Amino acid sequence: MNAPASAGDKSPQILLGIDPSLRGTGFGFIRTTTPQATALGHGTIKCPADWRKSRCLALIARTLRERIEEFQPSVCVIEGLFYAQNFKTALTMGEARGAALVAAAEAGLEIYEIAPRKVKQAIVGFGAAQKEAVGRMVQRMLGLEDQPEPDAADALALALTHAQTNPRNPLTVLKKV
Amino acid sequence: MNAPASAGDKSPQILLGIDPSLRGTGFGFIRTTTPQATALGHGTIKCPADWRKSRCLALIARTLRERIEEFQPSVCVIEGLFYAQNFKTALTMGEARGAALVAAAEAGLEIYEIAPRKVKQAIVGFGAAQKEAVGRMVQRMLGLEDQPEPDAADALALALTHAQTNPRNPLTVLKKV
Repeated sequence: MNAPASAGDKSPQILLGIDPSLRGTGFGFIRTTTPQATALGHGTIKCPADWRKSRCLALIARTLRERIEEFQPSVCVIEGLFYAQNFKTALTMGEARGAALVAAAEAGLEIYEIAPRKVKQAIVGFGAAQKEAVGRMVQRMLGLEDQPEPDAADALALALTHAQTNPRNPLTVLKKV
Repeated sequence: MNAPASAGDKSPQILLGIDPSLRGTGFGFIRTTTPQATALGHGTIKCPADWRKSRCLALIARTLRERIEEFQPSVCVIEGLFYAQNFKTALTMGEARGAALVAAAEAGLEIYEIAPRKVKQAIVGFGAAQKEAVGRMVQRMLGLEDQPEPDAADALALALTHAQTNPRNPLTVLKKV
């Protein structure tokens, strides 16, 4: 894997954003080129409702492992969660995150967590922005022909938020996990 | 991996029990020999409190993958969770479970979940039994010289509970995950 860039380093980095969930994990890779970041690839890992949980988790880990191998990022940014409707939802969210984090950690990536509100604040300028607004801004910021699917857009937004973070005046507190 | 045994099959199976947690995941492998099951190996994956979460998750997945490779089980039994103190605890429990399930699912194991109360009921005969009582019974049931560490004992207890389950009169409802 690439060596992690130091805080003052301006050379382009490859960042992986992940928005994990059991049935639809979004992922997106960007390169931090100037003046505009470049999208390298993005997608959604879809697991049908009739798949057992363990099958979904295996697919999440395997797909991310393969894409990491392909794009060689040095940093992973994952959505931080601070709320769930109930215990079962929190547990399932955690399982999807665990599968995703295993793939990123075993590949030696530096892993950061950013709260969804911070991402919306950074990308749309409004912490309670709708998913649709995030998708449109991500499309514009990366000069994409089509608007990415919602989960992939959220993943790209995570990576873009991290890319925008100026260590001297951080929009987001860098939280390593 | 071994082919899964059918319900009526009496040939010995190798079962892996896992009691996942971020800082101390217990695991235990047994062979379903008669009249008494045989312990093949057990242990606890310990992650110091100063390790980042992602490092712990990678170690959980890697260790289980290596032990699965070594002992070639066909079935995995994992502790089912139905309660947590709060959202953060549930999320962290989920992450550890996700890492463990990735290792088991990618190796092609059949995965079952059993609630802790059912395990205590099956092993000690009392659903609210203390950890110590479970450890002593596991030691006796497997004819072990030493009592396994608590997390490893819980993992062995999961495997033993599954081994005892008679499909005609199940102590535990077999829940595939």
